[in-house]
Amino acid sequence: MTERSLQEQIPHNHCFGCGPSNEGGLNLKSYWSGSGPSIARFTPQPQHCSAPAHFVNGGIIATLLDCHSICTAMAAAYHREARAIGSTPLCYYATASLVIHYRRPAPMETELELAAEILDANDKRCLLHCTLSADGKLCAEGEVQAVPVSLSWMGL
Amino acid sequence: MTERSLQEQIPHNHCFGCGPSNEGGLNLKSYWSGSGPSIARFTPQPQHCSAPAHFVNGGIIATLLDCHSICTAMAAAYHREARAIGSTPLCYYATASLVIHYRRPAPMETELELAAEILDANDKRCLLHCTLSADGKLCAEGEVQAVPVSLSWMGL
Repeated sequence: MTERSLQEQIPHNHCFGCGPSNEGGLNLKSYWSGSGPSIARFTPQPQHCSAPAHFVNGGIIATLLDCHSICTAMAAAYHREARAIGSTPLCYYATASLVIHYRRPAPMETELELAAEILDANDKRCLLHCTLSADGKLCAEGEVQAVPVSLSWMGL
Repeated sequence: MTERSLQEQIPHNHCFGCGPSNEGGLNLKSYWSGSGPSIARFTPQPQHCSAPAHFVNGGIIATLLDCHSICTAMAAAYHREARAIGSTPLCYYATASLVIHYRRPAPMETELELAAEILDANDKRCLLHCTLSADGKLCAEGEVQAVPVSLSWMGL
C-alpha cells in the first residue's frame, strides 16, 4: 500500500501551498509516521524562482515551511487524541506567526527536502521547527506557531 | 506621466512574487516616493487561497510582505547614493530573515494594501516593517531583514 500524504487525509483543504486539488498551487505532500520529523519533498517549477532565475523564491520557501508545519500540527492534534487523521470531529490549524532564517540560496534544479519537528504542543497552540534543505545542505529554517481554528473559520 | 513601479525600474528581476515578466507569478508592483511608507496593492487570484477558499494563503502573504520590503530596500540603497533606481552600479538585496505575525484572516475578494517602512538601514543591511491590510484593517505585519548581494549572486 502506498503511504498517503497528510494532505490526502485532511479534507476541505483548498490551500495554495498544499491543497491537493488547487490546480495553480504547489500541491505539497507531507508524510509523517507520528514519531521523528515529518518529511516533504518539493521540486520547484520555473515560475517559482527568485529575482535571479537560478534560486528558489523566498516566498515559495516560506509557503513550503508554513504548509508543511501546519499539516504536521494538524496530524499531531489527531495523534494526541489517538484518532485517525481526518476523522470527525475535524481538527484545523492556522498560522499565528512565522519566523524564517534564510541560510543559503536554494537551487532551482534540485528536489528540496522539508523536515518539521514539534517543539511544544497543547490544545491551544503547536510550536514547530522546520528546515528546508537541498542536496543535504540547510537552505532555510524557521519556527511556525500554529493555533487551532473553528469549523466556522474554515467555512464548514 | 504614469508613475513607474519599483519593479519596472529594477532590471533582471525574475522573481515569483514581483518579477514583471514572471508569467506564473504574482507580479506585485510597489511604489515609493522616497519618503513615508512604500505602497503596493494586490488582488488575490482564486488559486491564492488558504485551506478555506475564502481567505488568502499565509504563504502568499509572506511572499507579498517579502517582495514589497526587498524592493523598498533596494530603492532606498539607490536613494542613499542620490542615484536613479536601476542606474549602474546595480544594487540588489536578498532576504536574510522574515518574521510575520498573522493578525486576522485576509479576505479573497478584496484588494490588499501593503505598506513598508525602513526601521534601520546602512551599507550592510536594511531592516523594514511591513503591513498587509484589507479594507483598512490590519491582517498581517512583519519585519524583513534585507542584505545586499553581489552581481555574481544575481548571475550577472
